[in-house]
Amino acid sequence: MSYQEFTIEGRNAVIEAFRSGKTIDKLFLLDGCQDGPIQTIKREAKKQDTIVKFVDKERLDQMSVTGRHQGVIAQAAAYEYAEVEDILQAAKDKGEPPFVLILDNIEDPHNLGAILRTANLAGAHGVIIPKNRAVGLTATVARTSAGAINFTPVAKVTNIAKTIEDLKKEGMWFVCADMGGTSMYDLNLTGPIGLVIGNEGEGVGRLVKEKCDMIASIPMKGDIDSLNASVAAGVLAYEIVRQRLFHK
Amino acid sequence: MSYQEFTIEGRNAVIEAFRSGKTIDKLFLLDGCQDGPIQTIKREAKKQDTIVKFVDKERLDQMSVTGRHQGVIAQAAAYEYAEVEDILQAAKDKGEPPFVLILDNIEDPHNLGAILRTANLAGAHGVIIPKNRAVGLTATVARTSAGAINFTPVAKVTNIAKTIEDLKKEGMWFVCADMGGTSMYDLNLTGPIGLVIGNEGEGVGRLVKEKCDMIASIPMKGDIDSLNASVAAGVLAYEIVRQRLFHK
Repeated sequence: MSYQEFTIEGRNAVIEAFRSGKTIDKLFLLDGCQDGPIQTIKREAKKQDTIVKFVDKERLDQMSVTGRHQGVIAQAAAYEYAEVEDILQAAKDKGEPPFVLILDNIEDPHNLGAILRTANLAGAHGVIIPKNRAVGLTATVARTSAGAINFTPVAKVTNIAKTIEDLKKEGMWFVCADMGGTSMYDLNLTGPIGLVIGNEGEGVGRLVKEKCDMIASIPMKGDIDSLNASVAAGVLAYEIVRQRLFHK
Repeated sequence: MSYQEFTIEGRNAVIEAFRSGKTIDKLFLLDGCQDGPIQTIKREAKKQDTIVKFVDKERLDQMSVTGRHQGVIAQAAAYEYAEVEDILQAAKDKGEPPFVLILDNIEDPHNLGAILRTANLAGAHGVIIPKNRAVGLTATVARTSAGAINFTPVAKVTNIAKTIEDLKKEGMWFVCADMGGTSMYDLNLTGPIGLVIGNEGEGVGRLVKEKCDMIASIPMKGDIDSLNASVAAGVLAYEIVRQRLFHK
């Protein structure tokens, strides 16, 4: 997994970057510039919800690496996603039963960053996220992951339910976090395991939940509905850590 | 614990609210209004980092409850802090040994909100935060607490170390979360307990740490330094829940 911020300078380069689907985190445009290519860039930025800042020429000159910015500098992030196979291989290389976090549609980048930290420190071999709707590896995720993004592989898949099905054939078990399941203390979570964490508001989707072997609930004594998604992921991941330590 | 948003309308009322130290979350000013009192209000808002929105008269009229806004409406939040004694009383009323979270300088409102959710669901009787520097009960905290702010009492104290000392005299034990301590699985965390969580960047302060009876560490297998503060609080709080459930 590698992460690097880099700048893209010049009109054509930036337009191309947008069109190739690169994640542009921030766009700096020369204030007052209104010509055709700039309008195109603005439209692309709007489509992708990119933060646009209008700055003066001096600022752009300072930021520029090439010296040929033509009034446009984009800050992009290069993240290399892993393949699901890489994650399984990482487990094999360590001689450990696979331990994978599957995030069914986490939307908040702070949650994804915090979960990557947890995955790294709990010794998970990787994290799987869906291609659509959910947040991907943005600059905010990188920052809130406190470096974990550089160590813990993240794979992006088209269909979470299908991926779970495939991994079950490899001998993995899947437990999803949800209310109304079995207390996590009463489940055996020691084997090759995938921990499925749902969306912040809606929890785990029905199709994904149906693929899971177990539903684990965190005991709750209070008055409100649920823990923050990254806290829930942490509590469950560490129950797996505890069981792996003490019930081999 | 009660939380309520309310509006303060009119120039003098808003100036007074700022000067009395009330938390003003948002300020709505009539666009184009530039007289003396408005300048004073803008200065106060700037000092306190209040979000200022310039709106038209129609919008202000809609928002106004009194009908006499004079071009100024402030949105404030009223949070009632509890006393430390209230928290101990809550434990007594439930016939449980006290379980309190002490936050030594949490700065991020999202973390405080997430920790309040955890405190509520883990069955903690209250949360203690310091008066200075740390984040207090702002609107963001209220929102991210998902309602927990209405149920779990939060006390604000001048000196965390002193409060710990006082509570020790009441028979409580204190465990702080830090690296290089004893694995949380090897500690007895079943009695009347205060769990101390440190600042996001710097951890638990030296003076506070010296007052603690135990230092608990979360086992870490990964490459990075630490979990997100609210995740660490969640993992430790649930180790206390687990021990209370199974090792009475």
